[in-house]
Amino acid sequence: MQAQQMISTHPDARARPNDALIRCIEECYSCAQTCTSCADACLAEPKVRDLTQCIRMNLDCADICNITGRIATRRTGSDEEIIRRMLDACGAACRLCGDECQRHASMHEHCRVCADACQRCMRTCEEAGHSMAH
Amino acid sequence: MQAQQMISTHPDARARPNDALIRCIEECYSCAQTCTSCADACLAEPKVRDLTQCIRMNLDCADICNITGRIATRRTGSDEEIIRRMLDACGAACRLCGDECQRHASMHEHCRVCADACQRCMRTCEEAGHSMAH
Amino acid sequence: MQAQQMISTHPDARARPNDALIRCIEECYSCAQTCTSCADACLAEPKVRDLTQCIRMNLDCADICNITGRIATRRTGSDEEIIRRMLDACGAACRLCGDECQRHASMHEHCRVCADACQRCMRTCEEAGHSMAH
Amino acid sequence: MQAQQMISTHPDARARPNDALIRCIEECYSCAQTCTSCADACLAEPKVRDLTQCIRMNLDCADICNITGRIATRRTGSDEEIIRRMLDACGAACRLCGDECQRHASMHEHCRVCADACQRCMRTCEEAGHSMAH
Repeated sequence: MQAQQMISTHPDARARPNDALIRCIEECYSCAQTCTSCADACLAEPKVRDLTQCIRMNLDCADICNITGRIATRRTGSDEEIIRRMLDACGAACRLCGDECQRHASMHEHCRVCADACQRCMRTCEEAGHSMAH
Repeated sequence: MQAQQMISTHPDARARPNDALIRCIEECYSCAQTCTSCADACLAEPKVRDLTQCIRMNLDCADICNITGRIATRRTGSDEEIIRRMLDACGAACRLCGDECQRHASMHEHCRVCADACQRCMRTCEEAGHSMAH
Repeated sequence: MQAQQMISTHPDARARPNDALIRCIEECYSCAQTCTSCADACLAEPKVRDLTQCIRMNLDCADICNITGRIATRRTGSDEEIIRRMLDACGAACRLCGDECQRHASMHEHCRVCADACQRCMRTCEEAGHSMAH
Repeated sequence: MQAQQMISTHPDARARPNDALIRCIEECYSCAQTCTSCADACLAEPKVRDLTQCIRMNLDCADICNITGRIATRRTGSDEEIIRRMLDACGAACRLCGDECQRHASMHEHCRVCADACQRCMRTCEEAGHSMAH
């Protein structure tokens, strides 16, 4: 991912995000892929019926991470209230999805890896939110 | 759109949403299309430089409406905190995007139609949020 | 959905699509919602293990319909090869997903409705493709 | 991105993709971010009117890379015809978008970086397509 390199070329220098937002963009795209993969692996488990809540949360979390990454990438004009709300929503989705994955982490390696990814993405969303606070 | 017909077939009867949520799902998909179209029409305007903020908001709003529609469609398991947050974020995105479009409504018919669509979607997001409150 | 009304306001009159493309855009958004809903309803079925292939195809088909609707909506500049390829891919996804849903149509009403939606969307993709042929 | 680590945990060993598909998934997510960023930077350029075709292609390419990455990530059941078609469409979108970006590469660093990203993603789509051929 080249979020840093790309965004540093934005014509409006003031639009360039701080490091916390860059890290958050990269984690959002990465977590979107991980949650998509975890939903898919859960779906293939023999005991899929025990994992339907996990699949549902993975699908929602993947969708939210995806567009939070897109929205945080855009620097033209200003849409700060929306970025802030999406960082909040994405942090919450990652927290809830990570908690659910954690419940299955000892049984399913994909849930363990995904719980970690959600944790990491949640933290970068919070840090990016704080970095925008002033 | 057949949101009502589809969701009424969900195996878990308790998962079936009320009319407010159904209307909201349909407006979200519809507003996603309208905002995508408005961003595109703005981009083709000779005075596109005056419309970059509008384009940016349309892109963000389209993305948010899109996944709010997806997430609100899902009824399996429960993910109420996330639906609620996305309805909030989507309502806010529609309000801000609608306000920006309204500024160009006398000049550009696409902005006028889009401002109305955003207004309508914002209202259904609020109503759906209230309908979930208890 | 107001695809017709919006696209008729595009500043470049030559960019305005024919009726076949308008119908296709609307069916793509509608089918994206229906497939998202069918994947979700399948996931909640007691015999979800018999429906994992159906869920997977619904997820893929929803994603493809979603962006085919977006891409076909955009009329600025030209990207005809891409629209054409996406109409092809979307028609194929709808055919395969519709066939799979059809297999479960007698058991699950959501699969029956979704099979019809996929059929309809497939047909409009083909017609839109033909309408662009010259 | 942890595509490799995640997919290696899929319960169905036969579903695990080869290295070419893994690389392709990662490039698709990365290129989706880069194209979103390039569209945004182009929109902020003083001479945005010269870049509307580039923006349009970046938006389409970002959408296609995004869902190609999602679809290629899913390994449950089988949807090979669809993966193959999306790899084709994504390779074509990257080729066309990369060519357009290349035209502005000497003027705009974001277009230069994006042209390279599209090239790279195009190549991994082709290689992933070939790797599935037998």
